[in-house]
Amino acid sequence: MTSSSAAAFTPSFPGYAERARDSFARQGAMALIGAQIVDVRPGYCAIALTPRREVSQQHGYVHAGIIGAIADSAGGYAGYSLFPEDSSVLTVEFKLNLLSPAAGERLLAEGFVVKPGRTLAITRGEVHAESGGKRTLVALMQQTLMVMRGKADA
Amino acid sequence: MTSSSAAAFTPSFPGYAERARDSFARQGAMALIGAQIVDVRPGYCAIALTPRREVSQQHGYVHAGIIGAIADSAGGYAGYSLFPEDSSVLTVEFKLNLLSPAAGERLLAEGFVVKPGRTLAITRGEVHAESGGKRTLVALMQQTLMVMRGKADA
Amino acid sequence: MTSSSAAAFTPSFPGYAERARDSFARQGAMALIGAQIVDVRPGYCAIALTPRREVSQQHGYVHAGIIGAIADSAGGYAGYSLFPEDSSVLTVEFKLNLLSPAAGERLLAEGFVVKPGRTLAITRGEVHAESGGKRTLVALMQQTLMVMRGKADA
Amino acid sequence: MTSSSAAAFTPSFPGYAERARDSFARQGAMALIGAQIVDVRPGYCAIALTPRREVSQQHGYVHAGIIGAIADSAGGYAGYSLFPEDSSVLTVEFKLNLLSPAAGERLLAEGFVVKPGRTLAITRGEVHAESGGKRTLVALMQQTLMVMRGKADA
Repeated sequence: MTSSSAAAFTPSFPGYAERARDSFARQGAMALIGAQIVDVRPGYCAIALTPRREVSQQHGYVHAGIIGAIADSAGGYAGYSLFPEDSSVLTVEFKLNLLSPAAGERLLAEGFVVKPGRTLAITRGEVHAESGGKRTLVALMQQTLMVMRGKADA
Repeated sequence: MTSSSAAAFTPSFPGYAERARDSFARQGAMALIGAQIVDVRPGYCAIALTPRREVSQQHGYVHAGIIGAIADSAGGYAGYSLFPEDSSVLTVEFKLNLLSPAAGERLLAEGFVVKPGRTLAITRGEVHAESGGKRTLVALMQQTLMVMRGKADA
Repeated sequence: MTSSSAAAFTPSFPGYAERARDSFARQGAMALIGAQIVDVRPGYCAIALTPRREVSQQHGYVHAGIIGAIADSAGGYAGYSLFPEDSSVLTVEFKLNLLSPAAGERLLAEGFVVKPGRTLAITRGEVHAESGGKRTLVALMQQTLMVMRGKADA
Repeated sequence: MTSSSAAAFTPSFPGYAERARDSFARQGAMALIGAQIVDVRPGYCAIALTPRREVSQQHGYVHAGIIGAIADSAGGYAGYSLFPEDSSVLTVEFKLNLLSPAAGERLLAEGFVVKPGRTLAITRGEVHAESGGKRTLVALMQQTLMVMRGKADA
């Protein structure tokens, strides 16, 4: 039995990765928290963050809201990689489960498109903490995006 | 017909508001984004943020993840106001709908306890943008918290 | 300060309530579980269900999925009451927190529109159990709907 | 780099599968809608449903709430397979995205444990529609479960 959900994705135009990086660079919030976009592929995006006091909650771990912010951006740019050239991306909603305290050398938020669409796109996300060569899943996300047609991002 | 869901809440010890403010002051992430705790009452907390370029997404509005961060903290401290003295609070999960572009003079995130419990507490949250004396609802949240007994916050 | 979120809603055409009841009557699932639509107003819908063995989970309470089903329909018809005449309604996603065991004489699921829109509508929902003149909140929902324009329901 | 999230799961006692099937058999709601438990393994459960008029929404597809019901049960029994012998399972919350109209010969809801825990367990779920040897992903779920210790299921 074949599965329609495992399909590889095709970007809608060649400049999709540059467009995502340019858009990310305009997100003041990502610069403020020190997040970096480390990979963009069709239907996929990865964003990294170094855990430190400035992004912590009261016990010193990375704040759930900051984890949500990088997961939201990773899912958003995963989806955006498949959107038409003259469009921008909007988060309709996201839901985040926190699974383990977020600490370590690096957090990596990854967004994966599950279902692209004309008007909406659905993504899922994972945030792993990396420490001493070991990865721990610290958060799980499910997200709905909207395709804003005729509204180029810049 | 009376409703058990409209009950007023009783804090579990007199120092609940000071404990919330102390804990908030230890959240490096809230300081970084410029959020302020402006009200704590039993089962309620309000957190304010001034929209500006440093907390923006690519179109200049406040980033969905930053809105999520203040909504998560507001819900968390709303719940924490009802937790035992020797406990701390953990976000299990939250879900956020973005309803309108977030801009204006001030964002106010409010958390409301819907159901307190021995192990879990459920909250809902609203984030309004205030501009020229007018409030616009920009986000809606639903959240699950965990009571960490025997683990004082500080 | 006035609030834009407390606005009363205007239905888009006079037959909105009849359209909702007709559509509900075509939902085989609602008939199977014994749910009844008891109220439709602009931006609001209420659906009732009698707890009984046939809709139970393993401990005899109403199954979380059945609670979700009536909450989803209540939210859907709350939103649909504001949709154009030649449209139908689709659930994009919903999130449900279960707060208390669901039992008693009657469950009442209520859907409330929070934000209507051209393409999407956001609702929230509450499910109360009624027993001996007392109401207990048993579930809380947050939902995203899609307006399917040009696709009349019947 | 190794991942702690890809770990295989160990059931806490040999009778875990029989316990899940017995518990499922006590869910009146699953019998009413015609759902069947078709597989239980450590951290995994699959539940099947035949699409038909009795479980439909107004357009003839399977009702979002019914899809939620089988996804919730699949996630619940996936989690329960890892719970101690003298415990039962409770859904704290679930979030469901609907991706495609649900029709075909069979729906298969699969629950996968993402993170087991002493008090809470987190699962994700997928519902596929099977038709003519082809699988289509129709829904995606994220769920929080609670371990009810000292409360055997039967």
